Amino acid sequence: MTAELSTVLLVDRHRGTLDQALEAVRTRAFWSPHPEHPKAYPDPEAGRAAFEARLNARFALDQPGTDDWAGEEHSPYGIELGIQYPHPDPDVLLPAMRSAVPAWRDAGPEARALVCLEIIARINARTQEFAHAVMHTTGQAFTMAFQAGGPHAQDRGLEAVAYAYAEQVRTPQSAEWTKPQGKRDPIGLRKTFTAVPRGIGLVIGCNTFPTWNGYPGLFASLATGNAVLVKPHPRAVLPLALTVETAREVLAEAGYPRDLVCLAVDRPGEGLAKTLALRPEIRIIDYTGSTSFGDWLESHARQAQVYTEKAGVNTVVIDSTDDYRGMLANLAFSLSLYSGQMCTTPQNLLIPRDGISTDQGPRGYDEVVADLAAAVDKLLGDDARANALLGALVNADVKSRLDAAPGLGGVALASRSVAHPDFPHATVRTPALISLDGAKPDAESAYLSECFGPVSFAVAVDSTADALELLRRSIRDKGAMTVAGYTTSAQVEQDLEEVCFEECAQLSLNLTGGVYVNQTAAFSDFHGSGGNPAANAALCDGAFVANRFRVVEVRRPA
Amino acid sequence: MTAELSTVLLVDRHRGTLDQALEAVRTRAFWSPHPEHPKAYPDPEAGRAAFEARLNARFALDQPGTDDWAGEEHSPYGIELGIQYPHPDPDVLLPAMRSAVPAWRDAGPEARALVCLEIIARINARTQEFAHAVMHTTGQAFTMAFQAGGPHAQDRGLEAVAYAYAEQVRTPQSAEWTKPQGKRDPIGLRKTFTAVPRGIGLVIGCNTFPTWNGYPGLFASLATGNAVLVKPHPRAVLPLALTVETAREVLAEAGYPRDLVCLAVDRPGEGLAKTLALRPEIRIIDYTGSTSFGDWLESHARQAQVYTEKAGVNTVVIDSTDDYRGMLANLAFSLSLYSGQMCTTPQNLLIPRDGISTDQGPRGYDEVVADLAAAVDKLLGDDARANALLGALVNADVKSRLDAAPGLGGVALASRSVAHPDFPHATVRTPALISLDGAKPDAESAYLSECFGPVSFAVAVDSTADALELLRRSIRDKGAMTVAGYTTSAQVEQDLEEVCFEECAQLSLNLTGGVYVNQTAAFSDFHGSGGNPAANAALCDGAFVANRFRVVEVRRPA
Repeated sequence: MTAELSTVLLVDRHRGTLDQALEAVRTRAFWSPHPEHPKAYPDPEAGRAAFEARLNARFALDQPGTDDWAGEEHSPYGIELGIQYPHPDPDVLLPAMRSAVPAWRDAGPEARALVCLEIIARINARTQEFAHAVMHTTGQAFTMAFQAGGPHAQDRGLEAVAYAYAEQVRTPQSAEWTKPQGKRDPIGLRKTFTAVPRGIGLVIGCNTFPTWNGYPGLFASLATGNAVLVKPHPRAVLPLALTVETAREVLAEAGYPRDLVCLAVDRPGEGLAKTLALRPEIRIIDYTGSTSFGDWLESHARQAQVYTEKAGVNTVVIDSTDDYRGMLANLAFSLSLYSGQMCTTPQNLLIPRDGISTDQGPRGYDEVVADLAAAVDKLLGDDARANALLGALVNADVKSRLDAAPGLGGVALASRSVAHPDFPHATVRTPALISLDGAKPDAESAYLSECFGPVSFAVAVDSTADALELLRRSIRDKGAMTVAGYTTSAQVEQDLEEVCFEECAQLSLNLTGGVYVNQTAAFSDFHGSGGNPAANAALCDGAFVANRFRVVEVRRPA
Repeated sequence: MTAELSTVLLVDRHRGTLDQALEAVRTRAFWSPHPEHPKAYPDPEAGRAAFEARLNARFALDQPGTDDWAGEEHSPYGIELGIQYPHPDPDVLLPAMRSAVPAWRDAGPEARALVCLEIIARINARTQEFAHAVMHTTGQAFTMAFQAGGPHAQDRGLEAVAYAYAEQVRTPQSAEWTKPQGKRDPIGLRKTFTAVPRGIGLVIGCNTFPTWNGYPGLFASLATGNAVLVKPHPRAVLPLALTVETAREVLAEAGYPRDLVCLAVDRPGEGLAKTLALRPEIRIIDYTGSTSFGDWLESHARQAQVYTEKAGVNTVVIDSTDDYRGMLANLAFSLSLYSGQMCTTPQNLLIPRDGISTDQGPRGYDEVVADLAAAVDKLLGDDARANALLGALVNADVKSRLDAAPGLGGVALASRSVAHPDFPHATVRTPALISLDGAKPDAESAYLSECFGPVSFAVAVDSTADALELLRRSIRDKGAMTVAGYTTSAQVEQDLEEVCFEECAQLSLNLTGGVYVNQTAAFSDFHGSGGNPAANAALCDGAFVANRFRVVEVRRPA
């Protein structure tokens, strides 16, 4: 092989990083090879120019089976992207991808991991460009698009590669097996063990975090020897098209078929994801999005391993605090970040109707709600800071839900529009906080449904015990990506833990500083638990990678 | 805790064995802590007496929710067992089991593994008794019942414990996470990671290998913190009842609720497995048996992780050999062992119609078939040896299929009855070998269906290439637990490997000595691949254990 990227070169470049990633997931201490500060990335203007050069043009990828061009991206900031992407003929594309698999399988786990790390490194080098692509497809503010769509997403991809590599090398490539036979000669076998991929992995992207939610499945499938077909959300194609472009470039340079990674963009209303999901060549599916389509995939795509992240109802139990201002500030930030359009944003804040004890004395239910509303107002009082935190509403559905929110209960904090200095057509809104009485049966239909977007519910409950019971029921029936709790009581802490252990949800306690319940760090925090209805997988663990490949043993007499 | 079995004692007794098992699955060299020779186990008469004391009596387990007694076991050797087992009221039993889980979860991975090893050690000490129980429920000959139902099953259970333990301790129990903030103080979190079980695992046992096929799922679920409900095949209850009895005894002595392991035996025609499989408390199912019920479980028990071993069509490709006599003897043994009633027994022997080259010169198709028939005849010519190898037909369905076999093609070797000296009512039959022309379309319905029992098909194919194509189609459409090949050609070897890599099947090449395609050794060989229709899981690997528990993270400010 006379590849530009030889294995020797890739080992030299990336083996150290792979080893550090393997160590980080074992210790779960802080680690990242991808700096998150924009200043660490040179030449922001070149990044912007690269983004702008993509607009109103065809995004050519030279894939087999391109029968047409499709694309309908409109930036939540009001720009028409006008990019046309290849539309696939699955009858041509999928067999071409499948035929690329054996060479990739034969490369073995280490070479695959190193090629994946090179892809991630090249994506990292394009972070300035990705930031604009993520911003103008998701509505995230620039800094968040930069960090969550760039280094943090790259971290999650690298984490998946590390898990995939570790899983594949648990079994040795070969073994000599010698069984004693008493006085007779021992019998011996020579065995080889080969990690074989399932086939083609399909990644179905989401609108809000195309790279962050897309990279774990993409790199887990690719690193385990599968080909990967990326089917982005129709409104968030560009970040994944750039990803596919980079992956194809690296694969070719390393001497592997570039068709191991392809893009599939659908026409409006075509429902391409459904068609692809049922193809026999598709043996793995990674999906982030609505519960209804996630459930459909789990029920119908029986030929595939299906990993889903769906909707949930995230709860905060507020029992007591020794840092009332810190708690309010922390929650205000969590509710505001990206206008609550994160699967991890708290939705229900359960507060005893008789109030809570704080370091500033007792606070009644109404006081807590009013103080939280004031904290949000204060955080977002300056329009520049509000724009930097909120970003834009990603689509009209979110805006509809926000507009309907005042009808659901008492408006503790009304949403307001924020003008964006650069993008007059952006829809920027502060979060609404609606107060509900948990004891009223008709309130339940509001707070026990996911209301994705900048709407949260303060729910008056009879007691902390009542809150814990509602928390348990919310997780069990609706799922939860995150749970938060504030308490100064060791017993309540333990009770919160017990509910989260039994119902399988990730718990953050007493966050009052610069860590927020809706943020997780790769290599240390699990995203989701995989054990409640919000998601059937966690990012990232052994279960996320172990069934993407199988081990084929060949044994011969020694 | 004033348990008789303290953790200190259990560490002393079993930690070394656990470490050896962990090392064995990493190296996959030969290892077993359970000697397979009956002579290694003292006092066979006490074992027989213990078995006989169980007959015609109630098997009391002191489980909650026993509303009745059930049992209908008839030994394939003609004995009525007459044992009555507890019949459960799931509405009482399942909540009682569920409430036992938190204490077991809190024990942690190491304590759970050590308790499991104590259970396996006590089962090992009862091997003589288990041998009779397995023999008289499965029809296996005594030595096979002893070995496969005893030490080999115990090995597979221990292997599952090792994998479960390793998977749970990949993530540390706690971590300090400190993120630098440039010139500001770093932010810090204290994180704990707890392996939490899914709930209750249901083990649905099979008729032929109740312990060997039952132990991996049972111990994988138990070691990951779940309670386990064992629902044996109605004709093979006793070996699993003895297992449950032993597990409950050890759990109680170690200070854990004995209801973590319970038995559920159904009344004739009740379909208890279906009822239990859909209960919300059941979150894991391990099943070995028919494809139709396995498919039903996969489709319907959506609340559970479902691990199935179903039917397959096992193929031998015979291209050429440099040890013709060794090949014939090896295949004759594989076809005869337990009357072909193993999920791993070869069914289709694909032989080029123009014959094969051997160390004894070329052999035509008819010669190979005749020589193989003669090898079986020779192996089973002596009735004592025939009985020791064949065992008894496990049930009437197997006998019906055998009786119908001559109608499927040319009878190359007719089955004959063998009288059993001790059990005149046992149905002992030698295997039938039916010759089919693979080119005839009507032959396909015979050889492309699983014909479980002592029936194999010699299939005349046009060429080795034709055999490889049929092999590929058989695995893809029908699944395979095993594939074997005989060839002296490096190219054919490689082609066989390629088919098995692409279709995901375990391959044995050129076995001519004392290792048989239908036998696998725990800690070294994978049983099934988990990647073709015969089974969705392999025994045992990371994927078999990783999704039986989830990790719940709790994070607090440092």
